[in-house]
Amino acid sequence: MYANTPRTTATRHRDRMSYDRDLVHSVLDEAWVCHLSFVVDGEPRVLPTLHVRIGDVLYVHGSTGSRPLRSAQPDGIKVSVAVTLLDGLVLARSQFHHSANYRSVVAHGTATVVTDPAEKSAVLTAIAEKIAVGRAADTRPPTPKELAQTSVLALPLVEVAAKMRTGGVSDDPEDYALPHWAGVLPLRVVAGDPEPDKGVEGVPDYLRAVIGVTG
Amino acid sequence: MYANTPRTTATRHRDRMSYDRDLVHSVLDEAWVCHLSFVVDGEPRVLPTLHVRIGDVLYVHGSTGSRPLRSAQPDGIKVSVAVTLLDGLVLARSQFHHSANYRSVVAHGTATVVTDPAEKSAVLTAIAEKIAVGRAADTRPPTPKELAQTSVLALPLVEVAAKMRTGGVSDDPEDYALPHWAGVLPLRVVAGDPEPDKGVEGVPDYLRAVIGVTG
Repeated sequence: MYANTPRTTATRHRDRMSYDRDLVHSVLDEAWVCHLSFVVDGEPRVLPTLHVRIGDVLYVHGSTGSRPLRSAQPDGIKVSVAVTLLDGLVLARSQFHHSANYRSVVAHGTATVVTDPAEKSAVLTAIAEKIAVGRAADTRPPTPKELAQTSVLALPLVEVAAKMRTGGVSDDPEDYALPHWAGVLPLRVVAGDPEPDKGVEGVPDYLRAVIGVTG
Repeated sequence: MYANTPRTTATRHRDRMSYDRDLVHSVLDEAWVCHLSFVVDGEPRVLPTLHVRIGDVLYVHGSTGSRPLRSAQPDGIKVSVAVTLLDGLVLARSQFHHSANYRSVVAHGTATVVTDPAEKSAVLTAIAEKIAVGRAADTRPPTPKELAQTSVLALPLVEVAAKMRTGGVSDDPEDYALPHWAGVLPLRVVAGDPEPDKGVEGVPDYLRAVIGVTG
């Protein structure tokens, strides 16, 4: 379990919060995109970028065109990172009780720029393996020059929590007699058929394994 | 076209930026989840929440358990909001050139708390209609008490831009001869079969129309 702190304690729906390490990790590992927030001149910025988790460190791709991130000092930059998986839309009889089923994680802390080439290489390998187990072996590893051009931020997972909603509709008791349709519209991310690049034929087995399943 | 500003001008991949109003709107309208960033005591916070666009205003659900948002002053709170649609994973022959196809929007500005009940009601109706055209008419509209409990922030779309990557693999010329698989793994969000609540039978036509299509 991760420790809860004021920043990771909700004031509403506190029952939806979880500090379970496995749950936090599973959400981070299933999601491709994270949203990285930081402060520039007192104003908020948020950027979508890719991430990968290795152990208790969340690595985010830092080459997002943002000067502040690329110029992050050795002592790091304060960030807040969110990852959200939308599992369904909850259609209540009342407009007011419409909701969503989701699993999200928000992490707070100080992210530092990764400078060790070996650590950067491990991150690139982890991203490849996140696509599909076996993918890394079917790629050309990065050169020292490429690693120098790769910008990665590391955020230790210390102040982090998951929040989720699951289940069905929660209408007010008197609304259940209304004739309106109610229920859950499940949503999921699926991978379609791989589209080979020019000169490439077929689809390797390791990619076939992820077609049609949650991306 | 929206005007570009320093905050909406990328320092990398500037060719991926767009200020086209229709593109910005289409991304906001297709996505369910936005990530809302703001500053508390000089530190960044980011929260996932639901949004809906009406004209040139982005409405975000503010009841996300965050005191700073709920106590936003009448003069508003500075925010940065991002919406991201992940369209595919780009598998290059080199690990370094692995990438993602996506469409994203980031908006900056001052969000204000919506206090007008009619405006709040219009937001709830728009959310219902975003699920499926015809849904709003098949719900119980909000009561004055429910509207009072509904927390919505409004962000005028003024400083906003889209960023996207489309297309295939971009490997270095000398890598095309490598034997590694390369191509795009397309990803999309699909709606599964609706799961009716207890006492509810069948699926209305307006919901059937969204099954299997992008959610």
